[in-house]
Amino acid sequence: MRDGTAFQDHYAETYAQCYGCGRLNAHGLHIRSRWEGDETVCTFVPRPEHTAIPGYVYGGLIASLIDCHSTGTAAAAAQRAKGGAPGTAEMPRFVTGSLHVDYLRPTPLGPVLEIRGVVKEIKGRKVVVSSTLSADGLVCARGEVVAVEIPEGFGGVGAG
Amino acid sequence: MRDGTAFQDHYAETYAQCYGCGRLNAHGLHIRSRWEGDETVCTFVPRPEHTAIPGYVYGGLIASLIDCHSTGTAAAAAQRAKGGAPGTAEMPRFVTGSLHVDYLRPTPLGPVLEIRGVVKEIKGRKVVVSSTLSADGLVCARGEVVAVEIPEGFGGVGAG
Repeated sequence: MRDGTAFQDHYAETYAQCYGCGRLNAHGLHIRSRWEGDETVCTFVPRPEHTAIPGYVYGGLIASLIDCHSTGTAAAAAQRAKGGAPGTAEMPRFVTGSLHVDYLRPTPLGPVLEIRGVVKEIKGRKVVVSSTLSADGLVCARGEVVAVEIPEGFGGVGAG
Repeated sequence: MRDGTAFQDHYAETYAQCYGCGRLNAHGLHIRSRWEGDETVCTFVPRPEHTAIPGYVYGGLIASLIDCHSTGTAAAAAQRAKGGAPGTAEMPRFVTGSLHVDYLRPTPLGPVLEIRGVVKEIKGRKVVVSSTLSADGLVCARGEVVAVEIPEGFGGVGAG
């Protein structure tokens, strides 16, 4: 789906293959993120196989959701900082320099998960994003991502 | 596959459903880990769809590999600390309290990935595991996991 409502709808085609958030990855998770005031929001319903212990969501999926939502948030924040908005131009593309997740409580498998991001810092090509992941209104995990804008002639930096 | 050579072969059935490392998850990654001296090793070949930017491995998969290999390492280390060995009894089961990954360089998509774990600390029900992920002999990511043994009557702690 590319209806223009998500940050990831505006990634250049080359950068839209990501397993987590690429609209062009047929087997991927299709994570989609948008602004809600100064926060960013993404909702996601895990598949039945995304289990950890029966009844609970797999931690690697939680890390993936926080990762892609945060790099998307970084891209949108960088665009907004330059006075742009999603849809007005192609989004920049950020990769993950580092990812940290604290699993605060088991995440129930079934309910819609909501991931909310807040930009903590923009410094040159680096954006730090703090995110929470909630189920049924309860925060189950908290993450922090240091995202780095892909340089021209990509190759030398971390590719999360 | 459950030939007894991997830690995950010895998880109790209830705990073998994990998307990352459960032998009973039909759609999962089937991450398998074993001892090599005092280190633990896991090898994994990503699927073509596990892409980030074309040609490079998805960071969420890298986080998943480090996560499950580290919780497996924690379980094996706890068993070894008690004088047991994989196959002699059912493995304990650890979940993720926290996960940190530093993406040091892009991980090429294609080569076999090797994840190596080292136990940094065992303290009560908590085990800290440090892991590296390499491709073609080059370390591409470094991770640290705080793993927590599942208590009787599981429910109150983080379920990664």
